[in-house]
Amino acid sequence: MTDALPRILLLNGPNLNALGLREPELYGRHTLDDAEQLAQGRAASAGFGLDALQSNHEGALIDRIHQARTTHAGIVINPGGLAHTSVALADAIRSVALPTIEVHVTNVYRREEFRHHSYLSAAAEAVIAGAGVAGYGLAVDCLVELLAEK
Amino acid sequence: MTDALPRILLLNGPNLNALGLREPELYGRHTLDDAEQLAQGRAASAGFGLDALQSNHEGALIDRIHQARTTHAGIVINPGGLAHTSVALADAIRSVALPTIEVHVTNVYRREEFRHHSYLSAAAEAVIAGAGVAGYGLAVDCLVELLAEK
Amino acid sequence: MTDALPRILLLNGPNLNALGLREPELYGRHTLDDAEQLAQGRAASAGFGLDALQSNHEGALIDRIHQARTTHAGIVINPGGLAHTSVALADAIRSVALPTIEVHVTNVYRREEFRHHSYLSAAAEAVIAGAGVAGYGLAVDCLVELLAEK
Amino acid sequence: MTDALPRILLLNGPNLNALGLREPELYGRHTLDDAEQLAQGRAASAGFGLDALQSNHEGALIDRIHQARTTHAGIVINPGGLAHTSVALADAIRSVALPTIEVHVTNVYRREEFRHHSYLSAAAEAVIAGAGVAGYGLAVDCLVELLAEK
Amino acid sequence: MTDALPRILLLNGPNLNALGLREPELYGRHTLDDAEQLAQGRAASAGFGLDALQSNHEGALIDRIHQARTTHAGIVINPGGLAHTSVALADAIRSVALPTIEVHVTNVYRREEFRHHSYLSAAAEAVIAGAGVAGYGLAVDCLVELLAEK
Amino acid sequence: MTDALPRILLLNGPNLNALGLREPELYGRHTLDDAEQLAQGRAASAGFGLDALQSNHEGALIDRIHQARTTHAGIVINPGGLAHTSVALADAIRSVALPTIEVHVTNVYRREEFRHHSYLSAAAEAVIAGAGVAGYGLAVDCLVELLAEK
Amino acid sequence: MTDALPRILLLNGPNLNALGLREPELYGRHTLDDAEQLAQGRAASAGFGLDALQSNHEGALIDRIHQARTTHAGIVINPGGLAHTSVALADAIRSVALPTIEVHVTNVYRREEFRHHSYLSAAAEAVIAGAGVAGYGLAVDCLVELLAEK
Amino acid sequence: MTDALPRILLLNGPNLNALGLREPELYGRHTLDDAEQLAQGRAASAGFGLDALQSNHEGALIDRIHQARTTHAGIVINPGGLAHTSVALADAIRSVALPTIEVHVTNVYRREEFRHHSYLSAAAEAVIAGAGVAGYGLAVDCLVELLAEK
Amino acid sequence: MTDALPRILLLNGPNLNALGLREPELYGRHTLDDAEQLAQGRAASAGFGLDALQSNHEGALIDRIHQARTTHAGIVINPGGLAHTSVALADAIRSVALPTIEVHVTNVYRREEFRHHSYLSAAAEAVIAGAGVAGYGLAVDCLVELLAEK
Amino acid sequence: MTDALPRILLLNGPNLNALGLREPELYGRHTLDDAEQLAQGRAASAGFGLDALQSNHEGALIDRIHQARTTHAGIVINPGGLAHTSVALADAIRSVALPTIEVHVTNVYRREEFRHHSYLSAAAEAVIAGAGVAGYGLAVDCLVELLAEK
Amino acid sequence: MTDALPRILLLNGPNLNALGLREPELYGRHTLDDAEQLAQGRAASAGFGLDALQSNHEGALIDRIHQARTTHAGIVINPGGLAHTSVALADAIRSVALPTIEVHVTNVYRREEFRHHSYLSAAAEAVIAGAGVAGYGLAVDCLVELLAEK
Amino acid sequence: MTDALPRILLLNGPNLNALGLREPELYGRHTLDDAEQLAQGRAASAGFGLDALQSNHEGALIDRIHQARTTHAGIVINPGGLAHTSVALADAIRSVALPTIEVHVTNVYRREEFRHHSYLSAAAEAVIAGAGVAGYGLAVDCLVELLAEK
Repeated sequence: MTDALPRILLLNGPNLNALGLREPELYGRHTLDDAEQLAQGRAASAGFGLDALQSNHEGALIDRIHQARTTHAGIVINPGGLAHTSVALADAIRSVALPTIEVHVTNVYRREEFRHHSYLSAAAEAVIAGAGVAGYGLAVDCLVELLAEK
Repeated sequence: MTDALPRILLLNGPNLNALGLREPELYGRHTLDDAEQLAQGRAASAGFGLDALQSNHEGALIDRIHQARTTHAGIVINPGGLAHTSVALADAIRSVALPTIEVHVTNVYRREEFRHHSYLSAAAEAVIAGAGVAGYGLAVDCLVELLAEK
Repeated sequence: MTDALPRILLLNGPNLNALGLREPELYGRHTLDDAEQLAQGRAASAGFGLDALQSNHEGALIDRIHQARTTHAGIVINPGGLAHTSVALADAIRSVALPTIEVHVTNVYRREEFRHHSYLSAAAEAVIAGAGVAGYGLAVDCLVELLAEK
Repeated sequence: MTDALPRILLLNGPNLNALGLREPELYGRHTLDDAEQLAQGRAASAGFGLDALQSNHEGALIDRIHQARTTHAGIVINPGGLAHTSVALADAIRSVALPTIEVHVTNVYRREEFRHHSYLSAAAEAVIAGAGVAGYGLAVDCLVELLAEK
Repeated sequence: MTDALPRILLLNGPNLNALGLREPELYGRHTLDDAEQLAQGRAASAGFGLDALQSNHEGALIDRIHQARTTHAGIVINPGGLAHTSVALADAIRSVALPTIEVHVTNVYRREEFRHHSYLSAAAEAVIAGAGVAGYGLAVDCLVELLAEK
Repeated sequence: MTDALPRILLLNGPNLNALGLREPELYGRHTLDDAEQLAQGRAASAGFGLDALQSNHEGALIDRIHQARTTHAGIVINPGGLAHTSVALADAIRSVALPTIEVHVTNVYRREEFRHHSYLSAAAEAVIAGAGVAGYGLAVDCLVELLAEK
Repeated sequence: MTDALPRILLLNGPNLNALGLREPELYGRHTLDDAEQLAQGRAASAGFGLDALQSNHEGALIDRIHQARTTHAGIVINPGGLAHTSVALADAIRSVALPTIEVHVTNVYRREEFRHHSYLSAAAEAVIAGAGVAGYGLAVDCLVELLAEK
Repeated sequence: MTDALPRILLLNGPNLNALGLREPELYGRHTLDDAEQLAQGRAASAGFGLDALQSNHEGALIDRIHQARTTHAGIVINPGGLAHTSVALADAIRSVALPTIEVHVTNVYRREEFRHHSYLSAAAEAVIAGAGVAGYGLAVDCLVELLAEK
Repeated sequence: MTDALPRILLLNGPNLNALGLREPELYGRHTLDDAEQLAQGRAASAGFGLDALQSNHEGALIDRIHQARTTHAGIVINPGGLAHTSVALADAIRSVALPTIEVHVTNVYRREEFRHHSYLSAAAEAVIAGAGVAGYGLAVDCLVELLAEK
Repeated sequence: MTDALPRILLLNGPNLNALGLREPELYGRHTLDDAEQLAQGRAASAGFGLDALQSNHEGALIDRIHQARTTHAGIVINPGGLAHTSVALADAIRSVALPTIEVHVTNVYRREEFRHHSYLSAAAEAVIAGAGVAGYGLAVDCLVELLAEK
Repeated sequence: MTDALPRILLLNGPNLNALGLREPELYGRHTLDDAEQLAQGRAASAGFGLDALQSNHEGALIDRIHQARTTHAGIVINPGGLAHTSVALADAIRSVALPTIEVHVTNVYRREEFRHHSYLSAAAEAVIAGAGVAGYGLAVDCLVELLAEK
Repeated sequence: MTDALPRILLLNGPNLNALGLREPELYGRHTLDDAEQLAQGRAASAGFGLDALQSNHEGALIDRIHQARTTHAGIVINPGGLAHTSVALADAIRSVALPTIEVHVTNVYRREEFRHHSYLSAAAEAVIAGAGVAGYGLAVDCLVELLAEK
């Protein structure tokens, strides 16, 4: 975090550590490491640094969001299952008021009904779902574009 | 449609003719023409042709989707308000079985509750909402990536 | 549309072509022609021209609304059954931002429950239901009054 | 009530005493007195007398409706918030079986969801909402027209 | 339409042009042409002529229903996805008051929940779902029987 | 209230003043007076006095219930439309803790859905609906029986 | 069933064989036999015979209702738990079109929510709930009164 | 059941014994016997035997379905009111895995809302509702067609 | 109301006259008089006068609120059961636009579900529930603090 | 039932006669006989006798439960589809007040939504679902343990 | 925790670390430190010590509650967004059975609908919402009062 | 974890550290230690090792589940209140794809309605609720049986 580039925070929530291992017919074979590198590369070519954190702890994600308030330009977050159940995570995004892109590997809108609603979506600027791991690259592009417009 | 490139179909539903004119605090100042050119450019650089149609008629959109069955590789569609009310449009996508990306200019998940559900989303591969007109570019990128994986 | 008077657009949606023929115990014996003439007369005496369109096609109604953006001062619309199912029609009204009065021949609030909710009502300035064909006259009066206040 | 003209009863429910004072961005600047005079004038020119009552007491409104059974030709009523919560008021209308027009100053269909349903609407002949204080005039016109048809 | 036989109107809604092509595991391999010929044959042997229309446009279907008011004895309609979303189409049936049989190729009651409710069913005399393309034949038989009883 | 007999309080809510006049196909031709006399007679033959009040004012009914706390042995109440909307009336019954019988002239369970739920029913000992004016006699009998058992 | 008196059918549904044994704090200490004798006595003094059946079998109750079509003047029925779940039992009542009184020993409206709705109530003339075993007597009285009015 | 023809099982549920007697404005004047003979005739001309059972007992219908597992080719069933309330009956159909056609005399979709949902429909191959007693003939035709396709 | 102190209006709704008498296991043993004196004392020590009204009449409470528009600085109100059912009372608070504290003696959120929602809460500044009669003191403190901040 | 051992009643509801035959991918290949023998063995080793009944008749199951009141120590019951629809069966368990274990062969909570709720569960002591036929053994163990604790 | 005073535990949940920084138009400009000092002072003057913890981790809050079982007299908690989603936090309160006051800085009842329900409220003694940071002081007062009453 | 036995993971969620201390009328007097020893013993006699973890942190439970992917044969989990609110915990189970038994000490189906639904149940193989601490033993038995069948 000591270089001069503006930085993006990439957060992955519960169970995304298992990406590529878990239910590959749903989530594909790319790992979390693949996703983070893809995002990093896309950020770099737009002139942004990127810091990544995956945690299964809602509290750790919220702590990290608060720390980013003054150090990062925006957030890309795959909240995993917390999307559907955590008001606190969405409030953390509102609290730091950084532009945020919500990304889901799968198209949550064609899975179980409880995955159709995300508390986070109302706090995020944009939502990208179903593009697979490539969605992380699109999300970084999208965030960069939003930051450029401001 | 006579050149040799694989082609993408770009559809815009009701009221998107007014993009840039309509409620700019919601939809921004880019016009439909801007959106179509952005998509065209992005498609071209990936080696795809792109045909665009905007219509306020659900039936015209469905007719166009059926015509694309054998001539196009995939679809990018902003269904406008039909997202929330048209089973027939979603069934047309299912019927031709072309990979489809649903795009919304605004983040529909923070608008009125009736905009949170889209019949189309369960028929599409991926959904991108809230990225503004830039979302058309992301949607083309996303479709290209999905086609490459197959 | 070449005369100098400010103009009102009168739209009638699906099945209103059958007014007077259809279920007269519900809709009465006045025809669509009666309704249009009543509205025309009321508009004329207030110094407004009036253009009328009935269509069973949602898309044709939306097209007509967009064309009215710069040529008409306001809209009176009986959306028929589209009131209850069409987000796109309501968005068209929002899109042109012309003051709009929604009129229903019958008191929709004492018919089947699905007729109690109209997507259009939240986009319109005022709603008049149950006054029979006379409601068209009241709607023109109401629109004229609203235009006078601005 | 001793003159020979047929009479209309104009009822205003809770909080309409504050019309013009209360939330003017919602309700406008016309007072209850303005509304009653507008209605009176419109009734007079159609050959009707008009008696007006405003009360914050549901019971007082119901009492008045019962008294009107044999003395009045019809009712115009703005039930205020009782529209949404009072079965008893709607039953009073049913009980006297006088033709009744429900009027709301604001377009209740674009306010909080609990204002979208009115118990009264199913007991009334017609509903007029969102026309401002001018709605009282339209309501009298509407009632006069209905009485003429019978 | 100039011969002397009483006539049946056969309507097919959105996407039924793709019958036999679309999702054959769901809809089977019979085409729309097969369905129309089956119906025609069954009508002929009962002494009826039959006119068929397929359209992806709700408005075109409604227009056709109104034209049939005085020229046809009854209607067989597969509304496709419009069954679940179109009040206007159901109102068109009510408007012409011709006996109508609703037919679905698949058993809609074991598909997605939004396919369990059809606005049309309350306007139709009878509903036949799940019999495949053979359902068109059963529907014509059913209509003939109903017409005979009157 | 000065005689030595234990006393029953008979309450009738909004619009029951119109009993016999109002919608006789629903409510029959017996008047409120008939109902009160029937109840009085039945109470008398069981050795009880009876005091009756009809009011269209929720507050007046609640006031009367509180006054009865120490002077009456039990209550028979037809709450009219307040059954479905008044928590305060039901709380008044709970507050005085007198055994109470709820009576409805019509079978509310086969009327509009909003009449199927009564806040009062959970506060009352017993409910009698649909017996017509005779229900008042049954309710007194029922109360007498309950008082005898204690 | 050979005597000359008009007859009442008294039906008790599942678990009412355990009356007096089962959960006495809810149902009291009177047995089914007490209930049937009470009803019998009350019927006798009004000049009616009474035939009683208790069964835990929905089908047996329905069979009995059909047999009563031509032999009985009316029905008193405590459907037990079938009230809340049996459309078939309610349809049997509708099918024979005999005046029917539904009785519940407890006040079902203050028990679990699933006991607040009874399919039977919409088929019955009147409902009596919460009067304990005495409710059987009231129900017979009520039925006698209804029969007298016809 | 000893002849060589393949056999169809025809089941009729609660209250269908009263067909022709019960609510003829709803169900028509044909009796159960008429319905069974119609079905028998239609089966015979297609080369099938037919065994019929009507019962008001859910359990008897389920028992009969299990017995048919190895002796019958398919089932036609009018479940009556059990359609809306019996998971067990639908599970019996699933359990024997015989192709089954559900038939209703009336168009259940325009009656009370609780008649719009049938547990059986998701277990049956096809559903025919509203064709009157003629529906039994259509159902046999439909079953024969389905059996022919396998 | 002639002294120079700013004044607070303390309102108590239906049944609160019975405080201390009614269901003491729920509401405790303090009376309404205790509550009013506690509030008065707390107001006095903050330099406010206090006027108290208890009424079982919704209309009387609304009348009193309107009278307070220019004479009082704020309102403390225990609406009793009207909290859950009265839009009119909440609109009265909105109408006078005085800062208002809603207080409930019991913790309404652990009682019946219908007590969990209060129309008043959205019109009030703050809500205090479950503190017993002490809640009146807290409510006055809270109002004083809010007034100080302005 | 004449031996000296305390006895357990094992009940199986509708369609469980087909266990092992029916949908083996869901229910496995063990038969009802296997299940009963497993339970019997497990009961025997704990010093209990066991009587088993399977019936497709709700009434027969209820009858059997009532007979067990004084002869059995507890009940193990697989209600089949009646779990989701029968209040009467659950009331029978409550009525005899014997400790009862509800067992399901499949994990009902991952099947259709209507299988997620069981009326019986609120009347039973414990619920075991998804353990296959082995669940019968666990249920007997569980019942024995509960009986030992008392 | 070694001094002799009885102690109060003050807990703040997710995002309350940002109080004063976060959305000040909603939450005001007072910081968490201000809130804790206010509570501390109020506790001190009533003779109580106070220990404060803020955490974004649900688990940390629950751990702290369990530790308080024997060391603290009561709890004041602002659960932040966990109020609406955490059964576990509410169960922790139930588990230690210490009197607990729930406090919210904003009036949650006039924010998004998902903030209207708090799982915690049913486990707490009292709820204070909308008083701003001053609510912490009121909550301590309220707790002290409740402890005094015991 | 170095011995040669296959191992079972036993997880206990929030507040189960208080087992035996917390609400003993609900949860009994056995402690978490008792439960773990019971499970350990039952596992040992089936030839399995068992590792136990209790945590009040959702994230810690999810972390532990991921670690078990390659080291354990199956999971027994009492999720406590997280059952009803945590999609992430259920997804962790899905992610490692180990057979899992969900156990609840109490019969959650007869407690508050929000305890009737568990996200975990759809991810688990089997569910055991209401058997008290003995349920842990049954759950280990059940898991062992399931593992044996594979």
